[in-house]
Amino acid sequence: MKLARYGQPGSERPAVIVEGRVLDLSPVTTDIDGAFLADNGVEHVAATVAAGDLPPLDIEGLRVGAPIARPSTVACIGMNYAAHAAESGSQPPELPILFLKPPNTVVGPDDSVTIPRNSTKTDWEVELGVVIGQRASYLDSPADSMRHVAGFVISNDLSERDFQMSLSGGQWSKGKASPGFTPTGPWLVTPDEVDHRALRLRTWVNGEPRQDSTTADMVFDVEYLLWHLSQFMALEPGDLILTGTPQGVALSGRFPYLAGGDVVELEIDGLGRQRQVMEAFQ
Amino acid sequence: MKLARYGQPGSERPAVIVEGRVLDLSPVTTDIDGAFLADNGVEHVAATVAAGDLPPLDIEGLRVGAPIARPSTVACIGMNYAAHAAESGSQPPELPILFLKPPNTVVGPDDSVTIPRNSTKTDWEVELGVVIGQRASYLDSPADSMRHVAGFVISNDLSERDFQMSLSGGQWSKGKASPGFTPTGPWLVTPDEVDHRALRLRTWVNGEPRQDSTTADMVFDVEYLLWHLSQFMALEPGDLILTGTPQGVALSGRFPYLAGGDVVELEIDGLGRQRQVMEAFQ
Repeated sequence: MKLARYGQPGSERPAVIVEGRVLDLSPVTTDIDGAFLADNGVEHVAATVAAGDLPPLDIEGLRVGAPIARPSTVACIGMNYAAHAAESGSQPPELPILFLKPPNTVVGPDDSVTIPRNSTKTDWEVELGVVIGQRASYLDSPADSMRHVAGFVISNDLSERDFQMSLSGGQWSKGKASPGFTPTGPWLVTPDEVDHRALRLRTWVNGEPRQDSTTADMVFDVEYLLWHLSQFMALEPGDLILTGTPQGVALSGRFPYLAGGDVVELEIDGLGRQRQVMEAFQ
Repeated sequence: MKLARYGQPGSERPAVIVEGRVLDLSPVTTDIDGAFLADNGVEHVAATVAAGDLPPLDIEGLRVGAPIARPSTVACIGMNYAAHAAESGSQPPELPILFLKPPNTVVGPDDSVTIPRNSTKTDWEVELGVVIGQRASYLDSPADSMRHVAGFVISNDLSERDFQMSLSGGQWSKGKASPGFTPTGPWLVTPDEVDHRALRLRTWVNGEPRQDSTTADMVFDVEYLLWHLSQFMALEPGDLILTGTPQGVALSGRFPYLAGGDVVELEIDGLGRQRQVMEAFQ
């Protein structure tokens, strides 16, 4: 099942996509948020769809929102693909590296993004995102993780490398926090629809390929990550976990950083496609 | 003016404290959150208090909550007192160091705190907290900062030093994220009531003094911090900015880390006092 949200920021309308048809979820819930997911919202939607009770939603001309309301926490994993660690000048980590992004960076998948003031090194990062469905704290083993997952999304973990590494004293969040820096969606896809262990991830800038990898190359897989994080924090329904990016970013030195007018496109098999126009700071 | 929230987690009742009397704010707002603060809530409360329109609130036996609803972002500044940087083995930073805590770590000032599973280095950090009243993005100068401040709080930025520095790959958030790790309150105090540039901060463990310093010793002051952060992120109404801790933490090697049964007390002049009983992980 694919859940989505359409409309202006802050007033998106929830929807479900069934066999290519977009159905209005407003009769079931006001939003796709943590409370909805925790209350077995996905199962409830499935039953309502099966009963044929949902009206169609005309999305012609509507903005595509992030498929989840603003999370409580956006937790990110750094250096989780060995080849990306290498292009960043690092060894693969021995344990998952955790940093956080402000939840107000989450925007729609096709929203334009303003390059931050004084930025010269704005970079793309396609990532598999995990949306939490049930609270996860001190899980006993990685085998317990998937019971806490509502579904998967594609996100762009936009990063300003000077802010992240030169102006930061070593803590990365300063380069991850600018407005609009986490385009997410178009869909929240339930785990039954994708094999999250082997999804192709790709990015393009102005139509030229950049990243092209697979989630099979993760250093730590989704199950391990959620179990590990749950030892250090309580993951809540609606939280978003970004699982790291593969090689092929500008930080590698192989490609120029983003400039005003550039078009970034990202795709993960089964999770949809994003397209962001970068805008120069005015 | 002092704002506060009393009652069980998730259903706290808003209050205002005037000349030692606790008045019920429920007639004015359902909660002390970002929307309330952004809508000139503080001024509205002042007018309602002046009109004598608020009933008393009997807080006998009620839990003291954090004085603000869960923030969108908890942004923290590291190494912002030179003597604390020194005791941590670091030089004072040349620019503010930003890291984030999950907002679900924010709890009441007197809530007991469970030492995380497998923790051997749980540490205290008294900090001046700044609560944002109006959105702040790309401020022009530090002189603009105070217009965006709703008030000040005392927070304990509890930290697990092995999680923060040994299991983290260098990113501190893993040691800052455990449940209950940001006791906050008892009060949100408006800027007119305190001189935030010269507030004494103190901690005690089991009655013995630990930290004792003043916000006058900050490397970067509140005005500079908000201006600086606003270049890298949009600060939103209700967000909490923790401005760093002074010397006197266990990380210095001068004091033992916290154990089950320990009592941590914290105080900042004019912002009130906290008392947390540490509980061993079961």
